[in-house]
Amino acid sequence: MPLARLSIPAALPTDRARRLADAVHSALVATCGVPEKDRFQLITRFAADAMILDPTFPNVERSAEASIIEIVFLTGRTSDQKRALYRAVVDGAVKAGFRADDVMIALVENTPLDWSLGRGEAYADHAHPAT
Amino acid sequence: MPLARLSIPAALPTDRARRLADAVHSALVATCGVPEKDRFQLITRFAADAMILDPTFPNVERSAEASIIEIVFLTGRTSDQKRALYRAVVDGAVKAGFRADDVMIALVENTPLDWSLGRGEAYADHAHPAT
Amino acid sequence: MPLARLSIPAALPTDRARRLADAVHSALVATCGVPEKDRFQLITRFAADAMILDPTFPNVERSAEASIIEIVFLTGRTSDQKRALYRAVVDGAVKAGFRADDVMIALVENTPLDWSLGRGEAYADHAHPAT
Repeated sequence: MPLARLSIPAALPTDRARRLADAVHSALVATCGVPEKDRFQLITRFAADAMILDPTFPNVERSAEASIIEIVFLTGRTSDQKRALYRAVVDGAVKAGFRADDVMIALVENTPLDWSLGRGEAYADHAHPAT
Repeated sequence: MPLARLSIPAALPTDRARRLADAVHSALVATCGVPEKDRFQLITRFAADAMILDPTFPNVERSAEASIIEIVFLTGRTSDQKRALYRAVVDGAVKAGFRADDVMIALVENTPLDWSLGRGEAYADHAHPAT
Repeated sequence: MPLARLSIPAALPTDRARRLADAVHSALVATCGVPEKDRFQLITRFAADAMILDPTFPNVERSAEASIIEIVFLTGRTSDQKRALYRAVVDGAVKAGFRADDVMIALVENTPLDWSLGRGEAYADHAHPAT
């Protein structure tokens, strides 16, 4: 029910993109209580001139592999969970061959009633029946 | 002024995509008080390996046609309006040939001052003049 | 740390797209206190049938060059800053050859803890050390 959107350079090999996606999901599971099967990710490739990223702001050194991970998920995660999430995503990304400076993450929060995972049912209703 | 982003499999025929978009907009009009002409939608195709969706979470059976609809719209819709929206989107999608389990929806809310629909004017100002 | 996503018609020349992106960033710098180097933008092209925009809602005349700019940025900008942002984006877009009616903008807000710009560090921590 997090929805993760990965924006990556077109030049990045497909298996590297997949490994980054794996790292993102593993981090969500490890730090934010996301179920293992609750995985929804979209990967979009960008040509170099369609991905305008400052090379050093605020204090990093981005390479041509710099990627952006946007995650929409439920409000309620603590500041420490978000810090742990960033750390875990980057740890996994580094294992997948990325530089730590090349991983940018942005979070947007919504509420349980803002999701339907299928069948036209609100997730808030069918996932937590009042029984 | 809702902005709907449809992420659909590359293999889905164009007319099916369009019919899904029609279903999304009709549902917003029918359940959330969106004006008929207030339609803004972006459709993006994804190759199978760029669209990573768990096949069954939480209790559905997704096929290769599973699609994600993200809607940014104004805060203020009630929980029941959101429930009705999900139901209406899926009812329309089913009429367009989709399986009910293949339609995932995520909402993100913002405020009237967060939109400009053109001319550099805030929608909050020009749509509701204080006259 | 704003992240701007520009959705533009596939037919628009690359240099026009770049000039629109420049206008967006200059406007953020001029009106919202965004640092010059704090620039992160993604540009996506859409075929005409994948970009469904009402031609006149609410009171404009959109052409085939109509584009959508989505910006995720920190909460805290005032209503007047947002108004100034819209005006400045469109002023810059017009200088880049766009019609004022063709520029639609949507804002989504998050908080300082919702960003990591690299190295797995929360921006809220490393950008404003408690020293």
